[in-house]
Amino acid sequence: MPEAVQRMSRMLIKTLRDDPADAETLSHRLLVRAGYVRRTSAGVWSWLPLGKRVMDNVARVVREEMDAIGAQEVLLPALLPREPYETTGRWEEYGDELFRLKDRKGADHLLGPTHEEIFTLLVKDQCTSYKDLPVMLYQIQTKYRDEARPRAGVLRGREFQMKDSYSFDTTDEGLAESYRLHRAAYRRIFERLGLEHRIVSAVSGAMGGSASEEFLAPAAAGEDTFAHCPQCDYAANTEAVTHPLRPADTGGHPAPEELDTPDTPTIETLAAHLGVPASATLKNLLVKVDGEITAVGVPGDREVDLGKLAGHLAPATVELVTAEDFAGRPDLVRGYVGPQGLQGVRYLADPRVAPGTSWITGANKPGTHARNIVCGRDFEVDEYLDVAVVESGDPCPSCGTGLELGRAIEIGHIFQLGRKYADAFQLDVLGPQGKPVRVTMGSYGIGVSRAVAALAEQTADERGLCWPAEVAPADVHVVAAGKALQTEFALEVAAKLAAAGVRVIVDDRAGVSPGVKFTDAELIGVPRILVAGRRSAEDVVELKDRRTGAREELTADEAIARLTS
Amino acid sequence: MPEAVQRMSRMLIKTLRDDPADAETLSHRLLVRAGYVRRTSAGVWSWLPLGKRVMDNVARVVREEMDAIGAQEVLLPALLPREPYETTGRWEEYGDELFRLKDRKGADHLLGPTHEEIFTLLVKDQCTSYKDLPVMLYQIQTKYRDEARPRAGVLRGREFQMKDSYSFDTTDEGLAESYRLHRAAYRRIFERLGLEHRIVSAVSGAMGGSASEEFLAPAAAGEDTFAHCPQCDYAANTEAVTHPLRPADTGGHPAPEELDTPDTPTIETLAAHLGVPASATLKNLLVKVDGEITAVGVPGDREVDLGKLAGHLAPATVELVTAEDFAGRPDLVRGYVGPQGLQGVRYLADPRVAPGTSWITGANKPGTHARNIVCGRDFEVDEYLDVAVVESGDPCPSCGTGLELGRAIEIGHIFQLGRKYADAFQLDVLGPQGKPVRVTMGSYGIGVSRAVAALAEQTADERGLCWPAEVAPADVHVVAAGKALQTEFALEVAAKLAAAGVRVIVDDRAGVSPGVKFTDAELIGVPRILVAGRRSAEDVVELKDRRTGAREELTADEAIARLTS
Repeated sequence: MPEAVQRMSRMLIKTLRDDPADAETLSHRLLVRAGYVRRTSAGVWSWLPLGKRVMDNVARVVREEMDAIGAQEVLLPALLPREPYETTGRWEEYGDELFRLKDRKGADHLLGPTHEEIFTLLVKDQCTSYKDLPVMLYQIQTKYRDEARPRAGVLRGREFQMKDSYSFDTTDEGLAESYRLHRAAYRRIFERLGLEHRIVSAVSGAMGGSASEEFLAPAAAGEDTFAHCPQCDYAANTEAVTHPLRPADTGGHPAPEELDTPDTPTIETLAAHLGVPASATLKNLLVKVDGEITAVGVPGDREVDLGKLAGHLAPATVELVTAEDFAGRPDLVRGYVGPQGLQGVRYLADPRVAPGTSWITGANKPGTHARNIVCGRDFEVDEYLDVAVVESGDPCPSCGTGLELGRAIEIGHIFQLGRKYADAFQLDVLGPQGKPVRVTMGSYGIGVSRAVAALAEQTADERGLCWPAEVAPADVHVVAAGKALQTEFALEVAAKLAAAGVRVIVDDRAGVSPGVKFTDAELIGVPRILVAGRRSAEDVVELKDRRTGAREELTADEAIARLTS
Repeated sequence: MPEAVQRMSRMLIKTLRDDPADAETLSHRLLVRAGYVRRTSAGVWSWLPLGKRVMDNVARVVREEMDAIGAQEVLLPALLPREPYETTGRWEEYGDELFRLKDRKGADHLLGPTHEEIFTLLVKDQCTSYKDLPVMLYQIQTKYRDEARPRAGVLRGREFQMKDSYSFDTTDEGLAESYRLHRAAYRRIFERLGLEHRIVSAVSGAMGGSASEEFLAPAAAGEDTFAHCPQCDYAANTEAVTHPLRPADTGGHPAPEELDTPDTPTIETLAAHLGVPASATLKNLLVKVDGEITAVGVPGDREVDLGKLAGHLAPATVELVTAEDFAGRPDLVRGYVGPQGLQGVRYLADPRVAPGTSWITGANKPGTHARNIVCGRDFEVDEYLDVAVVESGDPCPSCGTGLELGRAIEIGHIFQLGRKYADAFQLDVLGPQGKPVRVTMGSYGIGVSRAVAALAEQTADERGLCWPAEVAPADVHVVAAGKALQTEFALEVAAKLAAAGVRVIVDDRAGVSPGVKFTDAELIGVPRILVAGRRSAEDVVELKDRRTGAREELTADEAIARLTS
């Protein structure tokens, strides 16, 4: 079926001159202004004809590359029963992010944020022998997460389109291979889409599992920060940057000594009072982990990244302590806490607080600090966690070079889940020796609607959207710049292009000035703009490259030949 | 991109020998047994690789025909805010059928059962002038209805795939044209899909609006009953069959007369006691309409169709009266109610209870009936409604011939909504004279997932599914019937077919007998089956037509030529 010409006079496209009041990011502003999406409610969007086409193009590329690695497409429901999520604990762990509802009989359901449970059950039902594996299944489906702060248009919505896939293997090597196949497919997908991206180490968080990597699209509007080394190939989400623990001898340090430090409840006041760098001091943050008071130690020049901390401790909840918590614990002296005096309080610390390091820290008395407090001699760390905010110039954990930081949008995430879900549902198959073998799984996601926003962020310029050819809503935007003659000529050229399989939008709107049409064409961002203007009677058109602005005059036939070659 | 060969050894297809315990209908049994769908929870289904392909094929045909009439594809959310549905009253009217939920902030949402409200608001936002219209928009989307009795597999689910479209016009003639375009597109869609169907008059029900027609696929498993005339072209859902009202003179009847009829509280006992046909008596059913007691009169040989009654009175609720209701109304004598004595009770009646007709009916005294009770003389009908159950042989409302009844599945429904939704949201555009014009709408639906089940119902035979070519999950099912030689040959033929653009499934499973493979091939229902069997070494295959069973032996090249021609 040849492509039909899309006539703007009949299309549902309303471009806006002004930015929407609530738009924070470039992609949000432009996708709304160019008529690609409209907000239906907070974090919930309608995809209009142009936006639907771009999203379909992204989905097509994803589908082709998933098919190419032998993944099979299915479609599971979005409305899911509570029980399997109860089994894995995620019914509770997801907290407020999960949309929950009851049906007419009072049974609990949820709107699927991700489908590990249901796929595990499906494979348990369908596969009985090691011969049935490996299997990779995927779907492109509407997902739901009740974000606390939906933002940036379709970049972080409460209802969104996602490709999620799941691999099932009987061996760790098999899982590694399924993971490798997905990783390679993702690279091809993002390359074909024209999305600049980096693969970085990531934390697995509530998903569980052993290893995971994120595909990040560098963009100022991104919500993720990643660190990368300019020397070696190290790159990680800052949430996943880890520091090596380098223990030293605890001997040879002077004895602890108390210091009278009135009115120095903060690191800044303490460092100034003592004339030492903040990095010589030990900061101890008190939090509640599932309600239990816990201390977290980091060098004084560092902040604790609460998101990272929560990620490490998930599914436990992490809250800051309140004045009431202090009121019930006179042994915890606000502003003067030191790990050497903590009773019955779990102590977590940054790897830089290694055994053998010596610190100035609180003496657990008002107005008093202590120096020569040595880790491993005067206090013990219960668990090391990378919870300090990563800063530009921090040494690369791999080669020691100063790290660089960048903002990015998470467009893909791949997980080696291992046997967490298979264990929860006892997913076994009969192995080659006739004994049950526990299955090991991977889980892989691409934000399809988010990729549209990420592409817009990376490719737009000051004039508007500027799509890569693979995802553009059309190949050519024909502008009828004039009256009836130009419109007739434009429609004729458009029809010839469409007959040759070129996807064409033609701006045949009557009563709209050429200037407005040009502005709209640049805003809409189709890669090539063909103008039927004042030389239409001579059969001459202008062909323009949306990105470079390069333009040339050609006969219509030359232009058609160019565009169909 | 050439089609990849689908190897059954690697596909997620598990066929079952036995019918699922809960399967009521042919399509339910076969779609589960052949591995197309699996139940996730009551009325909620997972589409496995084969099922997904068939559904995608249905969706493709729908999309092509919608595009061909100039409808534009969009994608609106399924998670919808309460307010617009509150505005139209449907937040309440939908009753238990609507899935309702709250977000983390306590705001009310629903899962969209149909999207009139949201499309109306979208067009109000996008279109300002009569020049922007007409516009037709569609989406293929997941819909939700919390059915009281989800049944028959994917035929009536609580989550399902639907194509819904909406037309917006400024004039009644425009709406009629949009409706006509949809009607013609639907005929082409169902013809291309190979779905036998009838277009019948329908009731609009809670949707509102003036005119509507249903596309019904005749099938024993259908939930709808339709009446059609063997003489003229009359066809209607029995819910929509109407009888002409033929009033006669009320004079010339004898005076009313009471009859002592002890122990005759039913029509059967009364007719037997008096020796008259049931059709000479008037049956008066008492119901509560929004809590108000209401009487419904039909000839004694007829039953009241409560579904029809509820449909006519929607959005009012209809319940049967209870013993308590009688207890509070001594004037209503159970089993002996007659319309001539009703005080303050609304009286609805079938058109056959026309002015001038005379009846035997209750005398509103225990054990007593009355004869010569004449409509228009002794009692008045407040409103005529077609609420009697339609029976085979009832006169055709158009030509009087005896109607025939059939069971069918509703696969499409088209509505001329008129201005109901435009009024609710004040959807106006500026007209040619510069004055606001109220927009008039149509709404059109096709059950995409249901069409898969309807196709299965209509085309399957005792051996399994038997898909029309347009929707089949593949064009050819290649069976490797033997050992390594046959498997290698089968894969070679399959690869050649795939390279020529033919969609191929090849059953290359090791350790599965030819008999099981043949049975599975018939169950799965791909139109052509190509067997690489005992003559593989001679380069000879058997080509079989799944429907007719016709088979012939050919060289592989001949078979490939045949299948690619």
